Amino acid sequence: MRDVQSPALPTSTESDRLRVVLVASRNPLNIGAAARAMSNFGYAHLRVVNPYEIAFREARSAIGAASLLERAQEYGSVAEAVADCTLVVGTTAIRHRELQHPMRLLHDGAPLIRQALASNPVALLFGSEKVGLSNKDLSHCHWVLHIPTRPENISMNLGQAVAVCLYELSRGRQRPARAEKSSPATGGEIELITTMLIDSLQVSGYINPRSQTHVEEKVRRLVRRLNLSAEDAKVWMGMMRQIAWKLRQP
Amino acid sequence: MRDVQSPALPTSTESDRLRVVLVASRNPLNIGAAARAMSNFGYAHLRVVNPYEIAFREARSAIGAASLLERAQEYGSVAEAVADCTLVVGTTAIRHRELQHPMRLLHDGAPLIRQALASNPVALLFGSEKVGLSNKDLSHCHWVLHIPTRPENISMNLGQAVAVCLYELSRGRQRPARAEKSSPATGGEIELITTMLIDSLQVSGYINPRSQTHVEEKVRRLVRRLNLSAEDAKVWMGMMRQIAWKLRQP
Repeated sequence: MRDVQSPALPTSTESDRLRVVLVASRNPLNIGAAARAMSNFGYAHLRVVNPYEIAFREARSAIGAASLLERAQEYGSVAEAVADCTLVVGTTAIRHRELQHPMRLLHDGAPLIRQALASNPVALLFGSEKVGLSNKDLSHCHWVLHIPTRPENISMNLGQAVAVCLYELSRGRQRPARAEKSSPATGGEIELITTMLIDSLQVSGYINPRSQTHVEEKVRRLVRRLNLSAEDAKVWMGMMRQIAWKLRQP
Repeated sequence: MRDVQSPALPTSTESDRLRVVLVASRNPLNIGAAARAMSNFGYAHLRVVNPYEIAFREARSAIGAASLLERAQEYGSVAEAVADCTLVVGTTAIRHRELQHPMRLLHDGAPLIRQALASNPVALLFGSEKVGLSNKDLSHCHWVLHIPTRPENISMNLGQAVAVCLYELSRGRQRPARAEKSSPATGGEIELITTMLIDSLQVSGYINPRSQTHVEEKVRRLVRRLNLSAEDAKVWMGMMRQIAWKLRQP
Protein backbone atom coordinates (compact mmCIF):
# COMPACT_ATOMS: atom_id res chain seq x y z
CA MET A 1 0.00 0.00 0.00
CA ARG A 2 2.89 2.28 -0.78
CA ASP A 3 0.89 4.61 -2.94
CA VAL A 4 -2.61 6.01 -2.64
CA GLN A 5 -5.11 7.03 -5.25
CA SER A 6 -5.55 10.73 -5.58
CA PRO A 7 -8.63 11.31 -3.46
CA ALA A 8 -11.64 12.72 -5.23
CA LEU A 9 -12.12 16.10 -3.64
CA PRO A 10 -15.41 17.86 -4.23
CA THR A 11 -16.23 18.20 -7.90
CA SER A 12 -15.62 21.70 -9.09
CA THR A 13 -19.24 22.53 -9.71
CA GLU A 14 -20.23 21.27 -6.28
CA SER A 15 -17.48 22.97 -4.31
CA ASP A 16 -18.05 26.07 -6.41
CA ARG A 17 -21.51 26.31 -4.92
CA LEU A 18 -20.42 26.54 -1.29
CA ARG A 19 -20.07 29.97 0.29
CA VAL A 20 -18.12 30.07 3.52
CA VAL A 21 -19.44 33.09 5.40
CA LEU A 22 -17.46 34.58 8.30
CA VAL A 23 -19.60 36.91 10.37
CA ALA A 24 -17.89 39.72 12.31
CA SER A 25 -14.51 38.03 12.53
CA ARG A 26 -11.95 39.99 14.51
CA ASN A 27 -8.74 38.07 14.23
CA PRO A 28 -6.77 38.28 10.97
CA LEU A 29 -5.01 35.01 11.78
CA ASN A 30 -8.36 33.26 11.97
CA ILE A 31 -9.62 34.75 8.73
CA GLY A 32 -6.37 33.69 7.11
CA ALA A 33 -6.60 30.21 8.65
CA ALA A 34 -10.17 29.81 7.41
CA ALA A 35 -9.05 30.79 3.91
CA ARG A 36 -6.14 28.37 4.06
CA ALA A 37 -8.41 25.48 5.03
CA MET A 38 -10.74 26.40 2.16
CA SER A 39 -7.81 26.27 -0.21
CA ASN A 40 -6.68 22.92 1.25
CA PHE A 41 -10.06 21.30 0.75
CA GLY A 42 -11.00 22.94 -2.52
CA TYR A 43 -13.58 25.60 -1.68
CA ALA A 44 -13.04 28.99 -3.29
CA HIS A 45 -15.83 31.31 -2.22
CA LEU A 46 -15.24 33.24 0.96
CA ARG A 47 -17.67 35.90 2.11
CA VAL A 48 -17.14 38.16 5.07
CA VAL A 49 -19.85 40.08 6.87
CA ASN A 50 -18.76 43.16 8.78
CA PRO A 51 -15.23 42.04 9.50
CA TYR A 52 -12.95 44.33 11.40
CA GLU A 53 -11.48 46.18 8.45
CA ILE A 54 -7.92 45.89 9.67
CA ALA A 55 -8.24 42.19 10.45
CA PHE A 56 -9.54 41.53 6.97
CA ARG A 57 -6.67 43.42 5.33
CA GLU A 58 -4.04 41.74 7.46
CA ALA A 59 -5.38 38.28 6.67
CA ARG A 60 -4.51 38.62 3.01
CA SER A 61 -1.12 36.98 3.34
CA ALA A 62 -2.39 33.57 4.52
CA ILE A 63 -0.24 30.77 3.15
CA GLY A 64 -1.56 29.35 -0.07
CA ALA A 65 -4.72 31.40 0.16
CA ALA A 66 -3.73 34.88 -1.04
CA SER A 67 -5.75 34.74 -4.26
CA LEU A 68 -8.74 33.29 -2.44
CA LEU A 69 -8.66 36.20 0.03
CA GLU A 70 -8.19 38.60 -2.86
CA ARG A 71 -11.48 37.39 -4.31
CA ALA A 72 -13.34 37.35 -0.99
CA GLN A 73 -16.55 39.35 -1.06
CA GLU A 74 -17.53 41.74 1.69
CA TYR A 75 -21.11 42.26 2.81
CA GLY A 76 -22.86 44.62 5.21
CA SER A 77 -25.34 42.03 6.47
CA VAL A 78 -25.94 38.30 6.68
CA ALA A 79 -29.08 38.75 4.58
CA GLU A 80 -27.06 40.10 1.66
CA ALA A 81 -24.31 37.51 2.07
CA VAL A 82 -26.71 34.58 1.74
CA ALA A 83 -29.14 36.10 -0.74
CA ASP A 84 -28.26 33.70 -3.58
CA CYS A 85 -28.24 30.55 -1.42
CA THR A 86 -31.06 28.03 -1.22
CA LEU A 87 -29.72 26.47 1.98
CA VAL A 88 -28.18 28.46 4.84
CA VAL A 89 -26.53 26.56 7.67
CA GLY A 90 -25.11 28.15 10.83
CA THR A 91 -22.42 26.61 13.00
CA THR A 92 -22.49 26.69 16.76
CA ALA A 93 -20.52 25.27 19.65
CA ILE A 94 -23.49 25.45 21.95
CA ARG A 95 -25.70 22.43 22.11
CA HIS A 96 -28.65 23.47 24.19
CA ARG A 97 -29.17 26.90 22.79
CA GLU A 98 -32.39 28.66 23.39
CA LEU A 99 -32.94 29.06 19.71
CA GLN A 100 -35.72 27.54 17.72
CA HIS A 101 -33.53 25.68 15.28
CA PRO A 102 -33.05 22.11 14.25
CA MET A 103 -29.51 21.12 15.17
CA ARG A 104 -27.43 18.41 13.51
CA LEU A 105 -24.10 16.93 14.40
CA LEU A 106 -21.49 17.61 11.73
CA HIS A 107 -21.36 14.11 10.30
CA ASP A 108 -25.15 13.93 10.11
CA GLY A 109 -25.52 17.36 8.56
CA ALA A 110 -22.74 17.13 5.97
CA PRO A 111 -24.58 14.75 3.62
CA LEU A 112 -27.56 17.14 3.56
CA ILE A 113 -25.29 20.01 2.63
CA ARG A 114 -23.67 17.98 -0.13
CA GLN A 115 -27.08 17.01 -1.41
CA ALA A 116 -28.09 20.66 -1.65
CA LEU A 117 -24.77 21.62 -3.25
CA ALA A 118 -25.49 19.21 -6.07
CA SER A 119 -27.87 21.74 -7.52
CA ASN A 120 -27.79 25.06 -5.65
CA PRO A 121 -25.57 27.46 -3.71
CA VAL A 122 -25.28 26.79 0.02
CA ALA A 123 -24.00 29.17 2.72
CA LEU A 124 -22.11 27.88 5.75
CA LEU A 125 -21.93 30.53 8.47
CA PHE A 126 -19.29 30.91 11.17
CA GLY A 127 -19.64 33.48 13.95
CA SER A 128 -17.06 35.64 15.65
CA GLU A 129 -14.42 34.10 17.90
CA LYS A 130 -15.92 35.60 21.04
CA VAL A 131 -19.66 35.20 20.76
CA GLY A 132 -20.36 33.00 17.76
CA LEU A 133 -23.43 33.67 15.67
CA SER A 134 -26.09 35.91 17.20
CA ASN A 135 -29.73 34.91 17.30
CA LYS A 136 -30.28 37.43 14.53
CA ASP A 137 -27.58 35.84 12.38
CA LEU A 138 -29.06 32.42 13.06
CA SER A 139 -32.50 33.57 12.05
CA HIS A 140 -31.26 33.47 8.48
CA CYS A 141 -30.35 29.78 8.83
CA HIS A 142 -32.41 26.76 7.90
CA TRP A 143 -30.69 24.68 10.54
CA VAL A 144 -27.64 24.61 12.72
CA LEU A 145 -24.51 22.45 12.57
CA HIS A 146 -22.58 21.34 15.64
CA ILE A 147 -19.10 19.85 15.86
CA PRO A 148 -19.20 17.36 18.75
CA THR A 149 -16.70 18.47 21.37
CA ARG A 150 -16.08 17.75 25.02
CA PRO A 151 -18.63 19.49 27.29
CA GLU A 152 -15.74 20.92 29.33
CA ASN A 153 -14.28 22.72 26.33
CA ILE A 154 -16.84 23.19 23.58
CA SER A 155 -15.38 26.32 22.05
CA MET A 156 -13.24 25.66 19.00
CA ASN A 157 -10.80 28.01 17.36
CA LEU A 158 -12.46 29.53 14.27
CA GLY A 159 -9.83 28.36 11.79
CA GLN A 160 -9.94 24.85 13.21
CA ALA A 161 -13.74 24.74 13.14
CA VAL A 162 -13.72 25.76 9.47
CA ALA A 163 -11.06 23.12 8.71
CA VAL A 164 -13.02 20.35 10.44
CA CYS A 165 -16.31 21.29 8.70
CA LEU A 166 -14.72 21.43 5.26
CA TYR A 167 -12.86 18.18 5.90
CA GLU A 168 -16.16 16.49 6.74
CA LEU A 169 -17.89 18.05 3.71
CA SER A 170 -15.22 16.72 1.36
CA ARG A 171 -14.84 13.45 3.29
CA GLY A 172 -17.72 11.60 1.71
CA ARG A 173 -16.29 12.35 -1.70
CA GLN A 174 -13.10 10.44 -1.22
CA ARG A 175 -12.65 7.14 -2.90
CA PRO A 176 -11.13 4.58 -0.60
CA ALA A 177 -7.41 4.24 -0.99
CA ARG A 178 -6.41 1.42 -3.24
CA ALA A 179 -4.83 -1.17 -1.05
CA GLU A 180 -1.75 -2.22 -2.92
CA LYS A 181 -1.42 -5.84 -1.95
CA SER A 182 2.26 -6.53 -2.11
CA SER A 183 2.71 -10.17 -2.96
CA PRO A 184 3.72 -12.38 -0.05
CA ALA A 185 7.05 -14.16 0.09
CA THR A 186 7.12 -17.76 -1.10
CA GLY A 187 7.57 -20.73 1.21
CA GLY A 188 11.02 -21.24 -0.27
CA GLU A 189 12.12 -17.70 0.54
CA ILE A 190 10.74 -17.95 4.08
CA GLU A 191 12.49 -21.26 4.62
CA LEU A 192 15.78 -19.83 3.36
CA ILE A 193 15.55 -17.02 5.90
CA THR A 194 14.65 -19.56 8.59
CA THR A 195 17.62 -21.76 7.74
CA MET A 196 20.10 -18.91 7.81
CA LEU A 197 18.66 -17.64 11.09
CA ILE A 198 18.86 -21.11 12.68
CA ASP A 199 22.42 -21.42 11.44
CA SER A 200 23.35 -18.09 13.05
CA LEU A 201 21.62 -19.08 16.28
CA GLN A 202 23.58 -22.32 16.39
CA VAL A 203 26.95 -20.67 15.78
CA SER A 204 26.24 -18.00 18.36
CA GLY A 205 25.18 -20.55 20.96
CA TYR A 206 21.50 -19.56 21.23
CA ILE A 207 20.51 -23.07 20.18
CA ASN A 208 22.18 -25.91 22.05
CA PRO A 209 22.16 -29.48 20.72
CA ARG A 210 19.81 -30.77 23.42
CA SER A 211 16.93 -28.47 22.59
CA GLN A 212 17.77 -28.21 18.88
CA THR A 213 14.58 -29.63 17.34
CA HIS A 214 12.28 -27.83 19.69
CA VAL A 215 13.92 -24.44 19.12
CA GLU A 216 14.14 -24.95 15.37
CA GLU A 217 10.40 -25.49 15.20
CA LYS A 218 9.81 -22.48 17.34
CA VAL A 219 11.98 -20.29 15.09
CA ARG A 220 10.28 -21.68 11.99
CA ARG A 221 6.86 -20.69 13.34
CA LEU A 222 8.20 -17.33 14.48
CA VAL A 223 9.50 -16.45 11.01
CA ARG A 224 6.23 -17.45 9.41
CA ARG A 225 4.29 -15.20 11.75
CA LEU A 226 6.16 -12.24 10.25
CA ASN A 227 4.03 -12.55 7.12
CA LEU A 228 6.82 -11.11 5.01
CA SER A 229 6.15 -9.62 1.62
CA ALA A 230 8.24 -10.86 -1.30
CA GLU A 231 10.05 -7.54 -1.37
CA ASP A 232 10.91 -7.48 2.34
CA ALA A 233 11.90 -11.14 2.27
CA LYS A 234 14.66 -10.31 -0.22
CA VAL A 235 16.12 -7.73 2.16
CA TRP A 236 15.95 -10.13 5.11
CA MET A 237 17.66 -12.82 3.05
CA GLY A 238 20.49 -10.43 2.24
CA MET A 239 20.91 -9.39 5.87
CA MET A 240 20.72 -12.93 7.23
CA ARG A 241 23.15 -14.23 4.65
CA GLN A 242 25.72 -11.58 5.60
CA ILE A 243 25.34 -12.18 9.33
CA ALA A 244 25.54 -15.97 8.95
CA TRP A 245 28.61 -15.63 6.72
CA LYS A 246 30.36 -13.36 9.23
CA LEU A 247 29.59 -15.69 12.12
CA ARG A 248 31.22 -18.55 10.22
CA GLN A 249 34.48 -16.64 9.73
CA PRO A 250 37.31 -18.02 11.77
CA MET B 1 -34.88 18.11 16.60
CA ARG B 2 -34.09 20.98 18.93
CA ASP B 3 -31.73 18.97 21.02
CA VAL B 4 -29.15 16.39 20.14
CA GLN B 5 -27.90 13.35 21.90
CA SER B 6 -24.60 13.90 23.58
CA PRO B 7 -22.17 12.58 21.01
CA ALA B 8 -20.09 9.58 21.92
CA LEU B 9 -16.66 11.07 22.35
CA PRO B 10 -13.74 8.71 22.90
CA THR B 11 -14.07 6.72 26.09
CA SER B 12 -11.67 7.98 28.69
CA THR B 13 -9.45 4.91 28.72
CA GLU B 14 -9.17 4.94 24.95
CA SER B 15 -8.47 8.65 24.55
CA ASP B 16 -6.08 8.37 27.49
CA ARG B 17 -3.91 6.08 25.39
CA LEU B 18 -3.31 8.52 22.56
CA ARG B 19 -0.09 10.57 22.61
CA VAL B 20 -0.09 13.55 20.29
CA VAL B 21 3.57 14.14 19.48
CA LEU B 22 4.68 17.46 17.98
CA VAL B 23 8.17 17.22 16.53
CA ALA B 24 10.29 20.40 16.33
CA SER B 25 7.37 22.82 16.37
CA ARG B 26 8.39 26.44 16.02
CA ASN B 27 5.22 28.45 16.35
CA PRO B 28 3.69 28.95 19.81
CA LEU B 29 0.29 29.67 18.24
CA ASN B 30 0.37 26.29 16.53
CA ILE B 31 1.40 24.41 19.67
CA GLY B 32 -1.40 26.20 21.51
CA ALA B 33 -3.87 25.47 18.73
CA ALA B 34 -2.93 21.78 18.76
CA ALA B 35 -3.48 21.69 22.52
CA ARG B 36 -6.82 23.44 22.18
CA ALA B 37 -8.04 20.92 19.60
CA MET B 38 -6.93 18.11 21.91
CA SER B 39 -8.95 19.64 24.70
CA ASN B 40 -11.96 20.06 22.39
CA PHE B 41 -11.95 16.43 21.34
CA GLY B 42 -10.94 14.90 24.65
CA TYR B 43 -7.30 13.90 24.28
CA ALA B 44 -5.01 14.85 27.16
CA HIS B 45 -1.50 13.64 26.41
CA LEU B 46 0.69 16.05 24.52
CA ARG B 47 4.36 15.31 23.91
CA VAL B 48 6.81 17.67 22.31
CA VAL B 49 10.14 16.67 20.80
CA ASN B 50 12.77 19.41 20.59
CA PRO B 51 10.38 22.34 20.43
CA TYR B 52 11.79 25.81 20.19
CA GLU B 53 11.97 26.57 23.89
CA ILE B 54 10.41 29.99 23.60
CA ALA B 55 7.60 28.75 21.39
CA PHE B 56 6.78 26.06 23.89
CA ARG B 57 6.68 28.50 26.81
CA GLU B 58 4.59 31.02 24.93
CA ALA B 59 2.05 28.40 23.94
CA ARG B 60 1.01 27.84 27.52
CA SER B 61 -1.82 30.33 27.41
CA ALA B 62 -3.89 28.58 24.73
CA ILE B 63 -7.60 28.94 25.38
CA GLY B 64 -9.05 26.08 27.34
CA ALA B 65 -5.81 24.12 27.18
CA ALA B 66 -3.58 25.65 29.84
CA SER B 67 -3.60 22.62 32.12
CA LEU B 68 -3.04 20.28 29.19
CA LEU B 69 0.02 22.29 28.16
CA GLU B 70 1.15 22.38 31.76
CA ARG B 71 1.26 18.58 31.74
CA ALA B 72 2.88 18.28 28.29
CA GLN B 73 6.03 16.17 28.31
CA GLU B 74 9.21 17.19 26.58
CA TYR B 75 11.57 14.72 24.89
CA GLY B 76 14.95 14.92 23.25
CA SER B 77 14.19 12.41 20.51
CA VAL B 78 11.33 10.74 18.70
CA ALA B 79 12.59 7.35 19.92
CA GLU B 80 12.09 8.39 23.56
CA ALA B 81 8.74 10.06 22.89
CA VAL B 82 7.24 6.89 21.40
CA ALA B 83 9.01 4.29 23.55
CA ASP B 84 5.83 3.18 25.36
CA CYS B 85 3.65 3.06 22.23
CA THR B 86 2.78 -0.10 20.31
CA LEU B 87 1.65 1.81 17.24
CA VAL B 88 3.42 4.88 15.89
CA VAL B 89 1.73 6.81 13.07
CA GLY B 90 3.25 9.77 11.25
CA THR B 91 1.25 12.42 9.42
CA THR B 92 2.33 13.85 6.10
CA ALA B 93 0.95 16.21 3.50
CA ILE B 94 2.96 14.61 0.77
CA ARG B 95 1.37 11.75 -1.06
CA HIS B 96 4.05 10.38 -3.30
CA ARG B 97 6.95 10.67 -0.93
CA GLU B 98 10.10 8.81 -1.71
CA LEU B 99 9.83 6.88 1.49
CA GLN B 100 8.97 3.24 1.80
CA HIS B 101 5.97 3.54 4.08
CA PRO B 102 2.44 2.28 3.79
CA MET B 103 0.23 5.36 3.53
CA ARG B 104 -3.42 5.60 4.49
CA LEU B 105 -5.97 8.33 3.97
CA LEU B 106 -7.21 9.73 7.27
CA HIS B 107 -10.62 8.07 7.22
CA ASP B 108 -9.09 4.70 6.35
CA GLY B 109 -6.37 4.93 8.97
CA ALA B 110 -8.48 6.22 11.88
CA PRO B 111 -10.28 2.90 12.53
CA LEU B 112 -6.90 1.14 12.76
CA ILE B 113 -5.69 3.69 15.30
CA ARG B 114 -8.87 3.31 17.34
CA GLN B 115 -8.50 -0.45 17.26
CA ALA B 116 -4.97 -0.18 18.64
CA LEU B 117 -6.07 2.38 21.26
CA ALA B 118 -8.54 -0.14 22.61
CA SER B 119 -5.66 -1.90 24.32
CA ASN B 120 -2.38 0.01 23.98
CA PRO B 121 -0.76 3.45 23.76
CA VAL B 122 -0.55 4.94 20.27
CA ALA B 123 1.59 7.88 19.13
CA LEU B 124 0.39 10.27 16.42
CA LEU B 125 3.28 12.37 15.10
CA PHE B 126 3.09 15.82 13.55
CA GLY B 127 6.14 17.46 12.01
CA SER B 128 7.28 21.05 12.02
CA GLU B 129 5.34 23.71 10.13
CA LYS B 130 8.06 24.19 7.55
CA VAL B 131 9.32 20.76 6.67
CA GLY B 132 7.02 18.21 8.29
CA LEU B 133 8.47 14.97 9.59
CA SER B 134 11.95 14.02 8.41
CA ASN B 135 12.74 10.61 6.97
CA LYS B 136 14.46 9.85 10.24
CA ASP B 137 11.34 10.80 12.24
CA LEU B 138 9.25 8.67 9.90
CA SER B 139 11.53 5.67 10.29
CA HIS B 140 10.04 5.29 13.77
CA CYS B 141 6.53 5.00 12.30
CA HIS B 142 4.62 1.88 11.39
CA TRP B 143 2.70 3.73 8.72
CA VAL B 144 1.78 7.19 7.55
CA LEU B 145 -1.50 9.09 7.64
CA HIS B 146 -2.53 11.58 4.98
CA ILE B 147 -5.31 14.17 5.09
CA PRO B 148 -6.63 14.38 1.53
CA THR B 149 -6.17 17.93 0.29
CA ARG B 150 -6.16 19.67 -3.05
CA PRO B 151 -2.96 18.95 -5.02
CA GLU B 152 -2.50 22.71 -5.55
CA ASN B 153 -2.39 23.37 -1.80
CA ILE B 154 -1.53 20.26 0.15
CA SER B 155 0.12 21.94 3.12
CA MET B 156 -2.19 22.36 6.09
CA ASN B 157 -1.69 24.58 9.10
CA LEU B 158 -0.42 22.45 12.00
CA GLY B 159 -3.23 23.31 14.41
CA GLN B 160 -5.83 22.63 11.74
CA ALA B 161 -4.23 19.31 10.80
CA VAL B 162 -4.30 18.21 14.45
CA ALA B 163 -7.94 19.30 14.77
CA VAL B 164 -9.00 17.40 11.65
CA CYS B 165 -7.17 14.21 12.71
CA LEU B 166 -8.63 14.26 16.22
CA TYR B 167 -12.09 15.00 14.86
CA GLU B 168 -11.85 11.96 12.60
CA LEU B 169 -10.48 9.82 15.44
CA SER B 170 -13.40 10.68 17.70
CA ARG B 171 -15.90 10.61 14.82
CA GLY B 172 -16.52 6.92 14.44
CA ARG B 173 -16.68 6.23 18.15
CA GLN B 174 -20.14 4.70 18.22
CA ARG B 175 -18.91 1.13 18.05
CA PRO B 176 -16.41 0.16 20.68
CA ALA B 177 -13.30 -1.19 19.04
CA ARG B 178 -12.52 -4.76 19.85
CA ALA B 179 -9.29 -5.46 21.60
CA GLU B 180 -6.70 -7.29 19.58
CA LYS B 181 -5.89 -10.85 20.50
CA SER B 182 -2.20 -10.66 21.22
CA SER B 183 -0.82 -7.37 22.46
CA PRO B 184 1.68 -5.70 20.14
CA ALA B 185 5.27 -4.91 21.10
CA THR B 186 6.08 -1.43 22.39
CA GLY B 187 8.13 1.14 20.47
CA GLY B 188 10.93 0.62 22.98
CA GLU B 189 11.07 -3.13 22.36
CA ILE B 190 10.97 -2.66 18.60
CA GLU B 191 13.74 -0.09 18.77
CA LEU B 192 15.90 -2.43 20.86
CA ILE B 193 15.56 -5.17 18.24
CA THR B 194 16.35 -2.60 15.55
CA THR B 195 19.46 -1.39 17.35
CA MET B 196 20.83 -4.90 17.86
CA LEU B 197 20.12 -5.81 14.26
CA ILE B 198 21.84 -2.67 12.99
CA ASP B 199 24.80 -3.45 15.23
CA SER B 200 25.06 -6.96 13.78
CA LEU B 201 24.77 -5.64 10.25
CA GLN B 202 27.61 -3.21 10.90
CA VAL B 203 29.93 -5.79 12.39
CA SER B 204 29.22 -8.22 9.58
CA GLY B 205 29.86 -5.60 6.91
CA TYR B 206 26.31 -5.37 5.53
CA ILE B 207 26.20 -1.69 6.42
CA ASN B 208 29.12 0.38 5.23
CA PRO B 209 29.82 3.84 6.66
CA ARG B 210 28.91 5.63 3.43
CA SER B 211 25.33 4.42 3.30
CA GLN B 212 24.92 4.12 7.09
CA THR B 213 22.03 6.56 7.67
CA HIS B 214 20.09 5.42 4.65
CA VAL B 215 20.35 1.74 5.54
CA GLU B 216 19.60 2.36 9.19
CA GLU B 217 16.33 4.07 8.29
CA LYS B 218 15.52 1.26 5.89
CA VAL B 219 16.12 -1.35 8.60
CA ARG B 220 14.05 0.64 11.10
CA ARG B 221 11.07 0.65 8.73
CA LEU B 222 11.61 -3.00 7.87
CA VAL B 223 11.45 -4.06 11.53
CA ARG B 224 8.30 -2.00 12.12
CA ARG B 225 6.58 -3.67 9.19
CA LEU B 226 6.94 -6.99 11.04
CA ASN B 227 4.16 -5.89 13.40
CA LEU B 228 5.62 -8.03 16.16
CA SER B 229 3.52 -9.08 19.10
CA ALA B 230 4.91 -8.41 22.59
CA GLU B 231 5.49 -12.12 23.01
CA ASP B 232 7.38 -12.62 19.75
CA ALA B 233 9.38 -9.43 20.31
CA LYS B 234 10.84 -10.98 23.46
CA VAL B 235 12.07 -14.00 21.50
CA TRP B 236 13.54 -11.78 18.76
CA MET B 237 15.31 -9.68 21.39
CA GLY B 238 16.88 -12.80 22.86
CA MET B 239 18.01 -14.08 19.47
CA MET B 240 19.36 -10.74 18.29
CA ARG B 241 21.20 -10.17 21.55
CA GLN B 242 22.95 -13.52 21.26
CA ILE B 243 23.91 -13.00 17.62
CA ALA B 244 25.16 -9.46 18.25
CA TRP B 245 27.17 -10.67 21.24
CA LYS B 246 28.77 -13.48 19.26
CA LEU B 247 29.67 -11.17 16.38
CA ARG B 248 31.49 -8.89 18.83
CA GLN B 249 33.67 -11.72 20.13
CA PRO B 250 37.28 -11.45 19.06
